[in-house]
Amino acid sequence: MRDIVVFGGSAHPALAEEVCAHLGVPLSPVRVSRFANDCLEVQLQANCRERDVFLIQPLVAPVQENLVELLLMCDAARGASAARITVVMPHYSYARSDKKDAPRISIGGRLVADLMVAAGAGRVLAMTLHSPQVHGFFSVPVDHLHALRELAEHFRGLDLSRTTVVSPDLGNAKEAAAFARMLGVQVAAGAKQRFADDRVVISSVIGDVADRDVIILDDEIAKGSTVLELLDRLGELGARSVRVACTHGLFAAGALERLSAREDVLEIVCTNTVPVPDGERSAKLSVLSVAPALAEAVRRIHNGESVSALFDAS
Amino acid sequence: MRDIVVFGGSAHPALAEEVCAHLGVPLSPVRVSRFANDCLEVQLQANCRERDVFLIQPLVAPVQENLVELLLMCDAARGASAARITVVMPHYSYARSDKKDAPRISIGGRLVADLMVAAGAGRVLAMTLHSPQVHGFFSVPVDHLHALRELAEHFRGLDLSRTTVVSPDLGNAKEAAAFARMLGVQVAAGAKQRFADDRVVISSVIGDVADRDVIILDDEIAKGSTVLELLDRLGELGARSVRVACTHGLFAAGALERLSAREDVLEIVCTNTVPVPDGERSAKLSVLSVAPALAEAVRRIHNGESVSALFDAS
Amino acid sequence: MRDIVVFGGSAHPALAEEVCAHLGVPLSPVRVSRFANDCLEVQLQANCRERDVFLIQPLVAPVQENLVELLLMCDAARGASAARITVVMPHYSYARSDKKDAPRISIGGRLVADLMVAAGAGRVLAMTLHSPQVHGFFSVPVDHLHALRELAEHFRGLDLSRTTVVSPDLGNAKEAAAFARMLGVQVAAGAKQRFADDRVVISSVIGDVADRDVIILDDEIAKGSTVLELLDRLGELGARSVRVACTHGLFAAGALERLSAREDVLEIVCTNTVPVPDGERSAKLSVLSVAPALAEAVRRIHNGESVSALFDAS
Amino acid sequence: MRDIVVFGGSAHPALAEEVCAHLGVPLSPVRVSRFANDCLEVQLQANCRERDVFLIQPLVAPVQENLVELLLMCDAARGASAARITVVMPHYSYARSDKKDAPRISIGGRLVADLMVAAGAGRVLAMTLHSPQVHGFFSVPVDHLHALRELAEHFRGLDLSRTTVVSPDLGNAKEAAAFARMLGVQVAAGAKQRFADDRVVISSVIGDVADRDVIILDDEIAKGSTVLELLDRLGELGARSVRVACTHGLFAAGALERLSAREDVLEIVCTNTVPVPDGERSAKLSVLSVAPALAEAVRRIHNGESVSALFDAS
Amino acid sequence: MRDIVVFGGSAHPALAEEVCAHLGVPLSPVRVSRFANDCLEVQLQANCRERDVFLIQPLVAPVQENLVELLLMCDAARGASAARITVVMPHYSYARSDKKDAPRISIGGRLVADLMVAAGAGRVLAMTLHSPQVHGFFSVPVDHLHALRELAEHFRGLDLSRTTVVSPDLGNAKEAAAFARMLGVQVAAGAKQRFADDRVVISSVIGDVADRDVIILDDEIAKGSTVLELLDRLGELGARSVRVACTHGLFAAGALERLSAREDVLEIVCTNTVPVPDGERSAKLSVLSVAPALAEAVRRIHNGESVSALFDAS
Amino acid sequence: MRDIVVFGGSAHPALAEEVCAHLGVPLSPVRVSRFANDCLEVQLQANCRERDVFLIQPLVAPVQENLVELLLMCDAARGASAARITVVMPHYSYARSDKKDAPRISIGGRLVADLMVAAGAGRVLAMTLHSPQVHGFFSVPVDHLHALRELAEHFRGLDLSRTTVVSPDLGNAKEAAAFARMLGVQVAAGAKQRFADDRVVISSVIGDVADRDVIILDDEIAKGSTVLELLDRLGELGARSVRVACTHGLFAAGALERLSAREDVLEIVCTNTVPVPDGERSAKLSVLSVAPALAEAVRRIHNGESVSALFDAS
Repeated sequence: MRDIVVFGGSAHPALAEEVCAHLGVPLSPVRVSRFANDCLEVQLQANCRERDVFLIQPLVAPVQENLVELLLMCDAARGASAARITVVMPHYSYARSDKKDAPRISIGGRLVADLMVAAGAGRVLAMTLHSPQVHGFFSVPVDHLHALRELAEHFRGLDLSRTTVVSPDLGNAKEAAAFARMLGVQVAAGAKQRFADDRVVISSVIGDVADRDVIILDDEIAKGSTVLELLDRLGELGARSVRVACTHGLFAAGALERLSAREDVLEIVCTNTVPVPDGERSAKLSVLSVAPALAEAVRRIHNGESVSALFDAS
Repeated sequence: MRDIVVFGGSAHPALAEEVCAHLGVPLSPVRVSRFANDCLEVQLQANCRERDVFLIQPLVAPVQENLVELLLMCDAARGASAARITVVMPHYSYARSDKKDAPRISIGGRLVADLMVAAGAGRVLAMTLHSPQVHGFFSVPVDHLHALRELAEHFRGLDLSRTTVVSPDLGNAKEAAAFARMLGVQVAAGAKQRFADDRVVISSVIGDVADRDVIILDDEIAKGSTVLELLDRLGELGARSVRVACTHGLFAAGALERLSAREDVLEIVCTNTVPVPDGERSAKLSVLSVAPALAEAVRRIHNGESVSALFDAS
Repeated sequence: MRDIVVFGGSAHPALAEEVCAHLGVPLSPVRVSRFANDCLEVQLQANCRERDVFLIQPLVAPVQENLVELLLMCDAARGASAARITVVMPHYSYARSDKKDAPRISIGGRLVADLMVAAGAGRVLAMTLHSPQVHGFFSVPVDHLHALRELAEHFRGLDLSRTTVVSPDLGNAKEAAAFARMLGVQVAAGAKQRFADDRVVISSVIGDVADRDVIILDDEIAKGSTVLELLDRLGELGARSVRVACTHGLFAAGALERLSAREDVLEIVCTNTVPVPDGERSAKLSVLSVAPALAEAVRRIHNGESVSALFDAS
Repeated sequence: MRDIVVFGGSAHPALAEEVCAHLGVPLSPVRVSRFANDCLEVQLQANCRERDVFLIQPLVAPVQENLVELLLMCDAARGASAARITVVMPHYSYARSDKKDAPRISIGGRLVADLMVAAGAGRVLAMTLHSPQVHGFFSVPVDHLHALRELAEHFRGLDLSRTTVVSPDLGNAKEAAAFARMLGVQVAAGAKQRFADDRVVISSVIGDVADRDVIILDDEIAKGSTVLELLDRLGELGARSVRVACTHGLFAAGALERLSAREDVLEIVCTNTVPVPDGERSAKLSVLSVAPALAEAVRRIHNGESVSALFDAS
Repeated sequence: MRDIVVFGGSAHPALAEEVCAHLGVPLSPVRVSRFANDCLEVQLQANCRERDVFLIQPLVAPVQENLVELLLMCDAARGASAARITVVMPHYSYARSDKKDAPRISIGGRLVADLMVAAGAGRVLAMTLHSPQVHGFFSVPVDHLHALRELAEHFRGLDLSRTTVVSPDLGNAKEAAAFARMLGVQVAAGAKQRFADDRVVISSVIGDVADRDVIILDDEIAKGSTVLELLDRLGELGARSVRVACTHGLFAAGALERLSAREDVLEIVCTNTVPVPDGERSAKLSVLSVAPALAEAVRRIHNGESVSALFDAS
Repeated sequence: MRDIVVFGGSAHPALAEEVCAHLGVPLSPVRVSRFANDCLEVQLQANCRERDVFLIQPLVAPVQENLVELLLMCDAARGASAARITVVMPHYSYARSDKKDAPRISIGGRLVADLMVAAGAGRVLAMTLHSPQVHGFFSVPVDHLHALRELAEHFRGLDLSRTTVVSPDLGNAKEAAAFARMLGVQVAAGAKQRFADDRVVISSVIGDVADRDVIILDDEIAKGSTVLELLDRLGELGARSVRVACTHGLFAAGALERLSAREDVLEIVCTNTVPVPDGERSAKLSVLSVAPALAEAVRRIHNGESVSALFDAS
């Protein structure tokens, strides 16, 4: 069997290290140089020839830098005769550009998928894509994981007898329902209408939340506007306690601070698909690791074992 | 300027005729032969050389026959040196296969988009795609129309003072909201959960429907299960009257009969993006024509005028 | 070595079963669903990851249904990370659309080859293509088998001392000559002129058939018009007995009945590249199995052994 | 309308000149340099930008030199921003490599078609391809002409009352039949079996040739072995006179001399799709020009008029 | 003729404005949004349908931001049915990554060329590429301009009787020789050896510079190390005066300040292919505009006139 | 592990034999047929199925014949289901066509790279490409070797105490410097200006050559004009002795004879990347073999070991 080689880009070296530790293989070094004219050059510093190469890079800020770096890594691996190149992208931020809701705009989610293939990517390992249709933007195989297992494990220690999982959005309530089934609890959902990138209104909540211990579950929290809206609604409806959980904790524009400052929020839980800046840490924040899950998926991809068998329990 | 040539496949010749009448160009004939071995052969019976060719074919039942026929038409037009080939597909049924919600399934919406391009299609004119992300499945330009204008025009004669537009699904409520704005009325939405292809539950309705004249708006009605569920809910909530409107009136498995039989349904309105079989006609059914809209879009595509300027008012 | 996985589509499950029995591997199940809107969805129900996947599907009636199903199977296998996808297509009906003999017609044989590649097929295993040039329509490797060995074996028990193999068509007489060499008998050929899909005239027969035991050999029998023409000619020329043999026994439009009804026809022999409907069975019909040959070819493709070494004896 | 620019390669400058004279446009010059290392460099010496470029080059000996030169011409035209590149290839010699009749051989007819497209060719104008299936080897539009009209015109002056057109090969008898219809005469065909590139046997002639004035019609004459075989057969059968006609007069290995030396051959007629070397001229040879036909096809392609309307009369 | 539409990205709006002023067409607006997750979205705010679209964007710092923005602009123009998309890239910084001089590095110059094509670019207008071979990295037509004419015009007012043009690098001396011919003066060249991105040694100068008025000509000045080395050498060799000229005045890391501070440098001349930050301005600096040249090239590309006729005088 | 199979084309069978001898695998036979119409047909006469196929063919005169033969070999290997096809091209003559230095010329180096990929080549093993940028013309992985090790070994026996390596061209002096470092000697370079394919002037020599033992090092010697120019210059500068070394000894147009006739030339050394015609042999010529290096690279490529680790020492 071809050997496995894992490289990590600049976007999230800690996660790459952790995945490698779980895999029991060394994280191979990458040299990224920036020339005087601001162009990047990437050198993969381990033999890729006929190897099964994995490149770990979530598309987090600075997104454009990390994207071009990733494309250069793909190109370098291809030129170095990699047998197979798998992009491990725990957070695919461009997935939010998934439709043409105005004339003459780019559909970034499709374009970036095509760019990765043009640069040599042969497959993608993604996590909790913003919409499931984004899977279809790729012309190469995609393994699409979620982090519900990790999040559920975290809450199992609590008294869940009066707990309800609440999705801020009925459109995405399917995940919340699956999560509630894992915990053996009820589910509810906000009826959300989005007016702009940072302006949403939640007109009501479907399902019973009065006097319940609520776990809000969302795929990602960027500015946190949606969750803040939902918190107001839950307060009005008499929720007993609130915890907030998400896969991608982007916490842009002071979102973590604002959420932590809310007295009604007992806890904020996210995973490490994206790096949480030290300065943004909060006493209420728990960051769960998806490294074991990613490592197991990489192992199965490498060995040709079913990934869905493990992760796609629905 | 290159001349325009319009061909229609077997799927919906009446619509093709009507589009051509509005365009003021003849519908060019297509010969479709079926060999003894059940294979099809297509002959386009008008000169395509350096022409701006439009092929009108919604993907309706028999879908596979109509799809392969369309691919053969694309191939024939390409081989006949068409300057440009635009597939006019008022109903893209495979758009519903837009995600991989089980292991090892096909994503038909992406595959069929790729097949059309492989067969020579250079652009697509579609109408009310099942999800807006499907636009991103195509590697060629897509003009994506809707039929809200036609539907709104139909209802403008009514007394709308107590009317509410109801979307059966919060996920798609954006279209219903736009439609309500056109009519100057209120909007509401069902909170729907889909369990299988033909099994849905609508747990509640967000917004006020008691004693209101309701217009249910959906993108398509196939078996009608969703609408029937919603009718029950609206009845319980005390709606005063109900009308049903949709773009794609597929009416499979006796759906039109079942909906017409409901006493609470005053009227059913759809468009002619798909052919309505004569045997399925109902006294309550009104079929609006999208031919003028398609013809105008074809004219603008041919002349290089903005299509969004006309249709994408949001 | 990568494991082998074999799936069979709806076109010919009995053949798929038989191939798998000879290979000693299970036939993996495929779930084909048809939605209310007549679209198909395919789910391959065995792990394909890094497997050597074989999809068995002859393009028989309903051809369009079977073709789209096959394309969806290819797409599903690709999306499921198959290491290699081989389409096993014992009968490629679209191979008859191999030239542009009228303006603005599709060349279906080339188009369908391109569609299979667009859907993910990496190689094709075909049998007795209508013309050898069709091989060149594929941009992926093709293994092209014939069934002469099986047919020859069938006739070896007879007294062949006065036998002549007769090709209905001089253009394809090469196969008949090879077949005659296998049996150690003489060869002759009809001089055939085709006027339309179902209208042919055989003006004469080259070679001696008077008082001979004739075996007519053709690649396929669809409506049987050619063979019926040839039977008349052979009767006039005083052939002593006639047997009819072909690879693809399509027997469309009552062909089997009409041939069986001829008193001068002692026997009709075909193979199971296509399914013979039960209702069409005839006492004179023998159906030989190509499953052992297909299985051996699959085994060799999987193991990287020469296929030509076994089958292309010329 | 984009201007037309015509270039001719080294293969057949006289034909290029003649086509241009008929078109009424100048033949634009091409500089072909050969470096010390035997590599070629092509410079198109007229502005190609947004022009409708035609490159005239039959693939005649030295075939490899002419092919690579043509590919370089395509590449230069593409790099020079040609709006469209049409390869005018009156003789496509690689069309004879159209099947895989031995293991592990190249299918040159498909490969060279792909190479032309890879080099930038956008369409092809061909004449009398060796087999009609070769049309399907191209992924770009092909206009496929024949020279029957020119050949028929030549023979119209003769007394044709006892004339029979004889095809050396039943497989290609369709063209001979069309030719005979044009002349209003009978048709016959040899039953030919090819054993190797230069070894054929014609076992019989189907149709009446005794005491007839025969016109042998073939697509090309290379070494002439087939025709020589047929001449013997015709002599035995008592043909009254023989004329030989073909589209592509390659006359390799002294074929013209050998045919001219036959007393039973009154005349040899070919066209100028390939250059006839001066040294090979014979008093019996008439070379008809296809330049008017090619020029008319080029004019129609350039103007977007139907080519089939003119040439594909069947 | 299709209309022209010109858009400018964020990299160099002033140049885009100036090109449009020379063309006499308005610069069409582009809306670039940055989402909370740092992803970009581009909206072209003028109709592109069937238009001849030009996108002006030099790849200057921040290079990755400007590159991804450009790719999104290409994608948006393609999706908006542009008839043709020309990237006007006056400075292609990634051209310096043009070889693989270490194992497992990316060749950014080729990769970025491929990415532009993948995003929809149909042709490129470039200026003074770092090495002429980079032209061959593009699979679409490239028009490659230089700025020698503009630079020469600038120096024509001077007394050139004792002037020598000096190339810092013998490898690129061809341009300096052409420039010297334009001015009717002598040429010389430094013998330069590059050890790293910012470390070069010029061991000697070929040609006579003692007591000459020197104009140093280079393609670009980034950190200026090479020019500074050359200045030392020229000083030692007794040059009478020195002026510095280049096409791309990147002036990274204080280069402009350091060069201006040299007393032996009378003047520094560059063009506006890249923006010169206001803070970096120097009294010795003259910035010449290439906008007229770019505008004329755009006009000729749009009208299908020869670009080489104007610019490639050699 | 997949087996290795090595084929050699007509260009340099001796080298192919020698590489195979070093590899310890047999050279598999290729049958190249030339038809009467001058077309080639290639048959690979060993099983390629799932094999790791290497095709050895330098592009030497007759270049076009050897190129088309190579493309047919690639095509045959692909059609025969090779697992991987590596073109071993010790001399890539078209690499000299690497830029567009005149309007409307082909860039042969890029075109031929694309043709090889279109024909099925999956990777390339090259040696001493004319310019390092040519690497970027390939869309498949390239291993780029040099022969400095072999050349250095040859000279190690000499007294090198007063030796200077001289590059005829400052642009390529990097290789000469590396070579000098290997030998532990000084380096110098000619300042060369090329006016045409066979007309160069060397204006001076940078570095000390008076009374030195000079080894001239160039990548290739075709007509030898450059070296002859340099010899004159070295003579004028008082070099003590001269030896000439290069990788590719093309020796066109009597170059070997002319160089050998020079009394000041003690020795001429080249490698066998290209065949040296027997008639061109000279007593002063030593031909070193690169077969061991190529064999080792092939072995490493086959085994997935690093090639750069061995050869790219810089």
